[in-house]
Amino acid sequence: MPTISNYTYDELSTGQRATFARQVSDRDIEGFAEICGDRNPVHLDDEFAARTAFGGRIAHGMLTGAFISAALAMTLPGPGTVYLSQSLRFRAPVKPGDEITVELEVIEKLDRRRRVTLDCKAYNQARKLVVSGTAEVMAPEEKMMIELPEPD
Amino acid sequence: MPTISNYTYDELSTGQRATFARQVSDRDIEGFAEICGDRNPVHLDDEFAARTAFGGRIAHGMLTGAFISAALAMTLPGPGTVYLSQSLRFRAPVKPGDEITVELEVIEKLDRRRRVTLDCKAYNQARKLVVSGTAEVMAPEEKMMIELPEPD
Repeated sequence: MPTISNYTYDELSTGQRATFARQVSDRDIEGFAEICGDRNPVHLDDEFAARTAFGGRIAHGMLTGAFISAALAMTLPGPGTVYLSQSLRFRAPVKPGDEITVELEVIEKLDRRRRVTLDCKAYNQARKLVVSGTAEVMAPEEKMMIELPEPD
Repeated sequence: MPTISNYTYDELSTGQRATFARQVSDRDIEGFAEICGDRNPVHLDDEFAARTAFGGRIAHGMLTGAFISAALAMTLPGPGTVYLSQSLRFRAPVKPGDEITVELEVIEKLDRRRRVTLDCKAYNQARKLVVSGTAEVMAPEEKMMIELPEPD
């Protein structure tokens, strides 16, 4: 079973960075549509989407938001992080097949309640910035080694 | 096939409201974990989650973010909306079985590029505020009647 670790508040320092990559499949877009309830044809219907300004199907913007959330939860600070807030600016469309890389950087630590602010950027495979924003989290107090549940 | 309509920029007015409700199933949480890559056991493993401060499994915060995104895309302004930015403050945990209602309200219109700002609040079935934030969108220029693709 794969295991991951975390960075406690005390182990984090400004300038610390992490990356997290995900490829966007058609199945991801269809699954995301079903889960959140946004079944707009610009995400699901090739013919419809071809006639829009995007020229083809695009992923839901919030799918990249979910990748940023996963990057925080899985890498920096990782397990035990409590998500407090997130800002997201959607800068360019993400298309099926795109390889999205989330880059996180610790930009501020506030001792009160282990508050940490991270800069969040998501790029596609052409290094085009697709989403940017800022996350506020409460960093973990305790070091953890987590056994990840396997997907079904 | 179900159809939905939209509100064009010209049809929107400040104070206009819409709601959008989704129930959070175990399958939604498992699917969201698989799609975004956040397989932390606080979302997936009952035994692990019972020992955390949450006392049981919780949904990914960004799942409620995805509901807010879907509310904008499906109801107000609806199809043809271009998502520009979103802020999210995660205020309380969402648990499997919770019924989440997103409430949107138009708070500002700026003629330049059909920019509309909406207040976004998500409540659980006990009317506890779980997520709040603000969305900026480019509202549709043209009225649309959209046939929704059926889920597979």
